[in-house]
Amino acid sequence: MSTSHQYEPQQHQHENQHQQRITVIGLGNLGRALAGAFLDAGYRVTVWNRSAAKAEPLVAKGARRAETVADAVAAGDLVIVCVLDYDAVRELLAPAADALAGRVLVNVTSGIPEQVRELAGWVSAQGASYLDGAVYAVPQTVGTPSAFVFYSGSSAAFDAHRERLELLGSALFTGPQPDTAAVYDTAVLSGMYGMFAGFFHAVALGGANGIKAADITAPLVRWLHEAAAALPGFADEIDSGDYTTETSNLDINAGGLRAILTATRAQGVPTDLLAPLQALFDEQITQGHGTQSLARTVESLRERGPLRERDGAAETAGS
Amino acid sequence: MSTSHQYEPQQHQHENQHQQRITVIGLGNLGRALAGAFLDAGYRVTVWNRSAAKAEPLVAKGARRAETVADAVAAGDLVIVCVLDYDAVRELLAPAADALAGRVLVNVTSGIPEQVRELAGWVSAQGASYLDGAVYAVPQTVGTPSAFVFYSGSSAAFDAHRERLELLGSALFTGPQPDTAAVYDTAVLSGMYGMFAGFFHAVALGGANGIKAADITAPLVRWLHEAAAALPGFADEIDSGDYTTETSNLDINAGGLRAILTATRAQGVPTDLLAPLQALFDEQITQGHGTQSLARTVESLRERGPLRERDGAAETAGS
Repeated sequence: MSTSHQYEPQQHQHENQHQQRITVIGLGNLGRALAGAFLDAGYRVTVWNRSAAKAEPLVAKGARRAETVADAVAAGDLVIVCVLDYDAVRELLAPAADALAGRVLVNVTSGIPEQVRELAGWVSAQGASYLDGAVYAVPQTVGTPSAFVFYSGSSAAFDAHRERLELLGSALFTGPQPDTAAVYDTAVLSGMYGMFAGFFHAVALGGANGIKAADITAPLVRWLHEAAAALPGFADEIDSGDYTTETSNLDINAGGLRAILTATRAQGVPTDLLAPLQALFDEQITQGHGTQSLARTVESLRERGPLRERDGAAETAGS
Repeated sequence: MSTSHQYEPQQHQHENQHQQRITVIGLGNLGRALAGAFLDAGYRVTVWNRSAAKAEPLVAKGARRAETVADAVAAGDLVIVCVLDYDAVRELLAPAADALAGRVLVNVTSGIPEQVRELAGWVSAQGASYLDGAVYAVPQTVGTPSAFVFYSGSSAAFDAHRERLELLGSALFTGPQPDTAAVYDTAVLSGMYGMFAGFFHAVALGGANGIKAADITAPLVRWLHEAAAALPGFADEIDSGDYTTETSNLDINAGGLRAILTATRAQGVPTDLLAPLQALFDEQITQGHGTQSLARTVESLRERGPLRERDGAAETAGS
């Protein structure tokens, strides 16, 4: 089923890399960057994209463009899939099912854990090894020291292809369950959105006082870098369950945040984004934990338990 | 009114610094660190604290302990006040009002703009120059490159004492209105609390999936440093009002955050902390801005206008 392709003899490829054939399916901005990183490292790369024109810059650099997804899958020992969503992944791979056996499929399409589990089961049923990947890079930073990728799934496949995966960014294996990378991805992105929410609040509050967003943002970014250094300490408190603290307790932080929300309301700026955090602080304090660490706030997100088991709990604990 | 104190002749102080007398009122952890930084630089430092014992380590390093606040104020050209709250500031300074004339009072007690304006007016009425300060440092980092302090109020006083203020951390003058530093402080801290909220969400979500807080936090911190680099670009979009983007638009981010919240609910973790951001994304998209930059979210916090003028607006725009 594989289509032979004669590489130009003048291409300088490392001998041992000739043995490894990599396929990239999906040539959006990120997919093109991933394929480019493999090409730059001298690998034999086959690409496929729904609109073939996206492949042209890669073909000019030595990639082979496959005519069908099944052809592309068959041409790679390592097959990377980077498309819009899981519906697209399943739709593309269905006609290529027969070609999957014995290959390693690395799916870096963004998805939630449930989607990953379903896809991983299907891929395994075709006789392929599944790795899920979550890429933390923009196309321009793929392959640079700032890029990293969470992987989960087949640890044997990860070990076998780690050298190649490291070409994209630091390869962080999170666990053998296929959905673990998606859990890390979802959690880390949720943390980012919290930071963005704080940014929007800060800039809106500055703006209401006639201060330019850029003037608030410069010291804010400086401080976020400093304050992020506190998070590993909070994490250790959470993991140990020991919230004893001499410094940043819930009473102090609840007072500080309350003052911020008061000043925010006084400027007519909505407190929507931060009032829920105040509610969690207050809940912990009401439970008698005011002198314990700020990190204890996370307990208010944990103790309500799974949705199925906590009828009505959200109402009593909400803002 | 000033109490003369004979400094030991063997103290090594720079000649020009003998001329400058600095007073620090309030010797909590931060106040002691501030006084220590001035002592280390060779200044003549007078200190006062409600419980005198806190002064002992500083006295051992050469500070003079004043018996009364009025004595302490009279002993300094530059008087730093670092106490619990504004009630304490006013209570302490009231009996020292006569001593304030001609001095520079730098109040680094945390407060909101309204409190600052009131205090600045009173201090000015006593014939003193007022500077408000917001310290971004923990006691251990005072005087290190990571520390910075926002100042606002008398620009003449700031210019005259800048060299000394730089000993505490980078001295950032934000404007001549006394409450401007407090506005910066409130805004920057609000941004920090957003980051903390995101951290709590991330760790709770990881924990519900059996992942230790430390394991989520390590990559989260790495990514927060990367993602914070996007904020100055967002700020420029906000200041220019041009939200044209090729990359991170509202549709994409709303889809991403919705997937996070779906995965969060599936694990039984409350979405309290991030659902309000989703509501603002959705509001912007409903208004037709889905292909514009994520940064446009801030407009949903601005366009509702002052509280007095927006009866009911919070309800229609809330989550």
